[in-house]
Amino acid sequence: MSRTVLMLPGDGIGPEIVAEAEKVLQKVNDRFALNLSFESGLVGGAALDAADTPLPEETLDKARKADAILLGAVGGPKWDSLPMSQRPEKGLLGLRSNLELFANLRPAILYPQLASASSLKPEVVSGLNIMIVRELTGGIYFGQPRGVRELESGERQGYNTYAYTETEIRRIGRVAFEAAQQRGKKLCSVDKANVLEVTVLWREIMNDLCREYPDVELSHMYVDNAAMQLVRAPKQFDVIVTGNMFGDILSDEAAMLTGSIGMLPSASLNSEKQGMYEPCHGSAPDIAGQGIANPLATILSAAMMLRYSLGEEEAAEAIEAAVSTVLDQGLRTADIMSPDGTQVSTREMGEAVLAAL
Amino acid sequence: MSRTVLMLPGDGIGPEIVAEAEKVLQKVNDRFALNLSFESGLVGGAALDAADTPLPEETLDKARKADAILLGAVGGPKWDSLPMSQRPEKGLLGLRSNLELFANLRPAILYPQLASASSLKPEVVSGLNIMIVRELTGGIYFGQPRGVRELESGERQGYNTYAYTETEIRRIGRVAFEAAQQRGKKLCSVDKANVLEVTVLWREIMNDLCREYPDVELSHMYVDNAAMQLVRAPKQFDVIVTGNMFGDILSDEAAMLTGSIGMLPSASLNSEKQGMYEPCHGSAPDIAGQGIANPLATILSAAMMLRYSLGEEEAAEAIEAAVSTVLDQGLRTADIMSPDGTQVSTREMGEAVLAAL
Ligand SMILES: CC(C)[C@H](C(=O)O)[C@@H](O)C(=O)O
Ligand SMILES: CC(C)[C@H](C(=O)O)[C@@H](O)C(=O)O
Repeated sequence: MSRTVLMLPGDGIGPEIVAEAEKVLQKVNDRFALNLSFESGLVGGAALDAADTPLPEETLDKARKADAILLGAVGGPKWDSLPMSQRPEKGLLGLRSNLELFANLRPAILYPQLASASSLKPEVVSGLNIMIVRELTGGIYFGQPRGVRELESGERQGYNTYAYTETEIRRIGRVAFEAAQQRGKKLCSVDKANVLEVTVLWREIMNDLCREYPDVELSHMYVDNAAMQLVRAPKQFDVIVTGNMFGDILSDEAAMLTGSIGMLPSASLNSEKQGMYEPCHGSAPDIAGQGIANPLATILSAAMMLRYSLGEEEAAEAIEAAVSTVLDQGLRTADIMSPDGTQVSTREMGEAVLAAL
Repeated sequence: MSRTVLMLPGDGIGPEIVAEAEKVLQKVNDRFALNLSFESGLVGGAALDAADTPLPEETLDKARKADAILLGAVGGPKWDSLPMSQRPEKGLLGLRSNLELFANLRPAILYPQLASASSLKPEVVSGLNIMIVRELTGGIYFGQPRGVRELESGERQGYNTYAYTETEIRRIGRVAFEAAQQRGKKLCSVDKANVLEVTVLWREIMNDLCREYPDVELSHMYVDNAAMQLVRAPKQFDVIVTGNMFGDILSDEAAMLTGSIGMLPSASLNSEKQGMYEPCHGSAPDIAGQGIANPLATILSAAMMLRYSLGEEEAAEAIEAAVSTVLDQGLRTADIMSPDGTQVSTREMGEAVLAAL
């Protein structure tokens, strides 16, 4: 059984980091006889430049047929002044919604080798291991109506709609409860139910679901308090579940607690476990093309892909072990450099992982 | 000229902390012959219990007539299961919108005496002094339509509307640019202009305004990145301006960076500089009635009131100096207690500030 992996390098540092991850995937493909075949496509600014759209039909077709997708990152100042419908981000959002990748899993893990990279005190973050489950195809990101209209007064008003149906809430809730069952059995649902009606429904459905998962302890937290608690005492959390917008904010905050966002992978899954895998960080246009970006988040995203979409746990673990080995060897890209580390380039880091495999 | 200050203790620890702030206000009233008169009123859960509404007409009348308002906090588990329109928070939101208190100023300051209370490394936060300017009467907090509806499919959908007009954006923008002029002349506007149309308009208006404030350096940041940067390197910020929802999240995150949210005041002003002043922290129902809450954020809110709404800079500074003195004396409530501090109760802390005045 042959499986297809679609590589979408995207913009900024995307091509550099995806190139390293592809070499790693190719190596495990050989070593574990995974029978993977690789395709590649254009998305984001790269697609805009080549085909005048952030998500060409051809890319979407390939994505639909692929068993899994590895994406670098999209966006950059070059395309910042384009109208909303023509921005690189629309490519990413279009993939998420067309493939119904509603479940975004974002681990925030502190690697012991990188403990000192965090801006938080060691005792606050040592051993940190949180999983953020973010709803990814609904909420205010996709809500209608939206736009800018002219009011009777003659002035303009911008507007967006934040909406969730029971079905959307329930399906992401199940993913989160199941993730909690596999982990520390604690789930914190984050909302703003004291102000926003849509999150009152969110809370109600989470409470409903809770009865089906009696082994999971469910709590609720307002989003402002969650943003504080992540700074104050992040280890109180096991799994966090929240909507698209709050998840965007809190997962980035949580990732940064570890001090090594260049290390953190993510998975976006649909109900058939087809998935798109990306590093948590962005396209970092300021350092693009310099060969200094950290490829490890993308390499670890490839490992997540093997685990969640391709069922190749052994190959996933091999990659994760190789990453741990290079960290133990003291190899560090600039973003995670420490006084006692050896600074390496994007490619050297990729080669080191290959060698450790 | 007599001025009226309305005291709204609210719920949880509200009455305890407002009582201490009122004593302090009374003392400066005498000492500086401010000719203040004090009234009090019910809001939030306290008003629900007494008058079946979170914002009685009587309170709203008093608030309209007052020159300034000092509010404790609202909310608590007792009222959590009430329908949205009947919740304590509606009292607070009703005051904000009825008085058009659109400009919420939330400083995040690290007190040198409390440097060790932060969960961040000392070098990351020492000297931290950020001002968050949050729009407070628009955005998704007040957007219409909102509610829960039944779809044709028979299932329910919750929905809210995130909207801003040019006028709303411009008036909060001006407050922020002026605040930046008084401070480090750097303003960072936070939005999600790569996804949300309403914030594309936000960004456009901020860019427009920028031309009128050539001495201020304006930058833009996506909200997810802002949540990260606050953790990574908070001292890069001077003034941050953002909408109601993002401001709720980021101001709480920023406040927690200091490790002493029990110390942070806030001001909510309208265009006549009438203002409502509150501590940044909440009603803390878990410790209510125990006499251990920290009254300093409320006392410092009273100082902000003297400065912004009553034009009594000297009295404001006297209070701030007194607070600094008690911190120097090592007096600490439980929330900011350190190994070398002397733990005191809410009342003892209030008395110490009075004595230092
Ligand atoms: C690029 C942007 C549209 C995207 C998002 O907001 O979802 C990114 O921030 C992310 O979190 O994957
Ligand atoms: C109590 C709540 C409605 C309020 C808000 O969200 O504005 C609070 O969190 C605040 O920040 O003042």
